[in-house]
Amino acid sequence: MAGERYWEDFAVGQEFKSGSVTVTAEAIKAFASQYDPQPFHTDENAAAGTFFGGLVASGWHTAALTMRMMVLSDLCVAGGLIGAGLDEVKWPRPVYPGDTLHVVPAVMDVRPLKSRPDRGLVRVHVQTFNQDDQLVQTFVANLFVPRRQQ
Amino acid sequence: MAGERYWEDFAVGQEFKSGSVTVTAEAIKAFASQYDPQPFHTDENAAAGTFFGGLVASGWHTAALTMRMMVLSDLCVAGGLIGAGLDEVKWPRPVYPGDTLHVVPAVMDVRPLKSRPDRGLVRVHVQTFNQDDQLVQTFVANLFVPRRQQ
Repeated sequence: MAGERYWEDFAVGQEFKSGSVTVTAEAIKAFASQYDPQPFHTDENAAAGTFFGGLVASGWHTAALTMRMMVLSDLCVAGGLIGAGLDEVKWPRPVYPGDTLHVVPAVMDVRPLKSRPDRGLVRVHVQTFNQDDQLVQTFVANLFVPRRQQ
Repeated sequence: MAGERYWEDFAVGQEFKSGSVTVTAEAIKAFASQYDPQPFHTDENAAAGTFFGGLVASGWHTAALTMRMMVLSDLCVAGGLIGAGLDEVKWPRPVYPGDTLHVVPAVMDVRPLKSRPDRGLVRVHVQTFNQDDQLVQTFVANLFVPRRQQ
């Protein structure tokens, strides 16, 4: 398929671009009611008396929205984004209702895989920022990327 | 509140119990259409020709369901489950439609926090298993847990 990237196309230092998403209070509460039913994610009034002092998005919601933005970004891995795992997931700052997020995926490392000659590993530093360019989430994704057929 | 655990109540080796959840094809496709729109998560027919050979749950869906099961488990952290971050997230085996998952959170480490005398860190090894007790996800959660008032 045109425009897809194989393992050989990745190099350390490459940066990609995502679109953005605005996180509404309704979306925060809808996600949390299914996957993270805690008062600071599900109810503005109950959230006021908690650690966060008000409604904030679940870190898992931020992560899921980050995945969506990565899938729709110009990263375009051949065969799709298939993660072997993640390292060092951090949420340094909460996501508040009305925040607009975007993602900057940057290649940190590119390695062959001894066990699978048809695939290689691409380690991507995935940073998610809010509208003020404040970091709200960071992790390292280990992507399992196909090699070009010889 | 009765039954809630503070930092002083945690000790290395403690294991907790969660309920379970069955992951339907409909739930896999609904999550993926919002957060991980790739053919191996959104469409049985398209999934047949991919790396996975059929429909599988997004790793983020497994993670979100794991969080729900942790929130509703007997872990019961005072003030809620507040994560400073995660380490070593892995998905060693796919989650297929019809799989029934449960979570075993186990305490790995308990540390004070120099920067915050009112809180401590509890590192929890969170393993998610399917109905055949096969590991489908593992990570280490760094929880930010309140200390008892002196």
